[in-house]
Amino acid sequence: MTASILVVGSVAFDSLKTPFGEADEILGGSATYFSVAASYFSQVRLVAVVGTDFPDKHLEVFRKHKVDIAGLVQVTGRTFRWKGEYGYDLNEAKTLDTQLNVFETFKPEIPEAYRSCEYVFLGNIDPDLQLNVLEQIKRPRVVACDTMNFWIKGRPDAVKRTIAHVDILIINDTETRMLADEANLVRAAKKILAMGPKTLIVKRGEYGVLMFHGTSVFGAPAFPLEDVYDPTGAGDTFAGGFMGALAHAGDTTERTFRRGIIFGSVMASFDVEKFGLQRLTDLTRDEIDERFRQFKHLTHFEEV
Amino acid sequence: MTASILVVGSVAFDSLKTPFGEADEILGGSATYFSVAASYFSQVRLVAVVGTDFPDKHLEVFRKHKVDIAGLVQVTGRTFRWKGEYGYDLNEAKTLDTQLNVFETFKPEIPEAYRSCEYVFLGNIDPDLQLNVLEQIKRPRVVACDTMNFWIKGRPDAVKRTIAHVDILIINDTETRMLADEANLVRAAKKILAMGPKTLIVKRGEYGVLMFHGTSVFGAPAFPLEDVYDPTGAGDTFAGGFMGALAHAGDTTERTFRRGIIFGSVMASFDVEKFGLQRLTDLTRDEIDERFRQFKHLTHFEEV
Repeated sequence: MTASILVVGSVAFDSLKTPFGEADEILGGSATYFSVAASYFSQVRLVAVVGTDFPDKHLEVFRKHKVDIAGLVQVTGRTFRWKGEYGYDLNEAKTLDTQLNVFETFKPEIPEAYRSCEYVFLGNIDPDLQLNVLEQIKRPRVVACDTMNFWIKGRPDAVKRTIAHVDILIINDTETRMLADEANLVRAAKKILAMGPKTLIVKRGEYGVLMFHGTSVFGAPAFPLEDVYDPTGAGDTFAGGFMGALAHAGDTTERTFRRGIIFGSVMASFDVEKFGLQRLTDLTRDEIDERFRQFKHLTHFEEV
Repeated sequence: MTASILVVGSVAFDSLKTPFGEADEILGGSATYFSVAASYFSQVRLVAVVGTDFPDKHLEVFRKHKVDIAGLVQVTGRTFRWKGEYGYDLNEAKTLDTQLNVFETFKPEIPEAYRSCEYVFLGNIDPDLQLNVLEQIKRPRVVACDTMNFWIKGRPDAVKRTIAHVDILIINDTETRMLADEANLVRAAKKILAMGPKTLIVKRGEYGVLMFHGTSVFGAPAFPLEDVYDPTGAGDTFAGGFMGALAHAGDTTERTFRRGIIFGSVMASFDVEKFGLQRLTDLTRDEIDERFRQFKHLTHFEEV
């Protein structure tokens, strides 16, 4: 059995509108996308909160993917709701409405059985809560963390306190520049690596990913797709594929990190092909490996 | 001796301003950047026009790089001048002033000795003139072509007439979407390949390059740089490295095309590190090969 991954984040209802269709109150949230993606590689243990309006049928998704939901707490109130819209370029969501509901007072309690998880992913929540989660865990081998412009701008000191205890920071290019207060991405990455993380993974949407890992840099394009319907969850799906592949490999070599980046990119490429979790929930491992091989073909060239 | 490359384009005086410095009336132009970059790989034959104000000292650059300037015509009048400014992101130039001068009435005449060139690069000039150049050439093996939004928007039919006779079209992502009238890049590329070119190379600035070649796609990130001073000429420098590597290899296999993309990216990465032609004119072949190897390290990951 490979090592298990603890994920803390949101489970939500998403209402989405893209130029290609819309969906109302479908299952979403950072921890949901992460869990489903990671489940193809490793055991996942979920910590999140939902309200009393959360229907049992949604639990089926987690059960189907063998995600441990002992840490999914149900409390009185309504589940977190997010409403967003994408334009034709599908690059950035315009948030139309956010109702934190039960997520507003979420204080993640890590179940005893989860505390020895070796791999931890801190989804995008209050940086103080992220740190508090880490304090509840025994001796994690790899801790990865997401955050967003909202926290970087509003609570930069809290973000820096948290990432000082994190191995891998996974954010987008705008957030990288903002956190480092530096326009040049390579310089910004160096500044962030000096804040604590040994690895910085910069997500660039349709342009792919850059990983700064010590003095080494790895770059991969995104998988070029003819049909992109809904980018919701792509970042968390990427993180899920990445962490899943790491836990599955069971080592922290650069070789494994690089392959993790590609597995993350593979999962994200499936995510965006259909609405919500649709494509992610009916994948086979063969399809994943086949797209990995296509990634190899996409990027391969011969030595000088 | 490797095959020679014919380039038709502009030789100009550029006045540039970036957040990191400025320069007044330095040597520039699409054919200049292309020639210098390609000269590290192959013999280059230049066709362009300058005015009577063009000083002899600028010819030194071409002589140093063994560029054949028998096709560089000097006519009465002033040389093409361009003035541009870049913001902190350095992604797009804001044109402050364009004086076409002698370039306005430029009708490229291909010298007899050039007409059997096997490799041809049509820099960004009037699409009708590009086609006229092709009519003067005997039996080119590979024809590549650049164009820009100005022509795509203003003269779409002329652009389409020209690219129907071209093997490789090298444009940026905005131009790709505009030419195909399609937001999705993969679909846009398919539409453009149906217009004639066998290969479409999409330049994405700091995000790298995508090559659509038949049913195959190749993607490479740009080389991440800590010091980016001046992106002027990066696109033509890329094309120069690409075509130079093709001519040097002497075949048109996909292997050679992919390596050409990397050599083009290598040359572009050097170009942007200093002002104007500064870095491009004092390179060694060893430095080029070393950065090619760094590109391999940047993008390498192991099979599934």
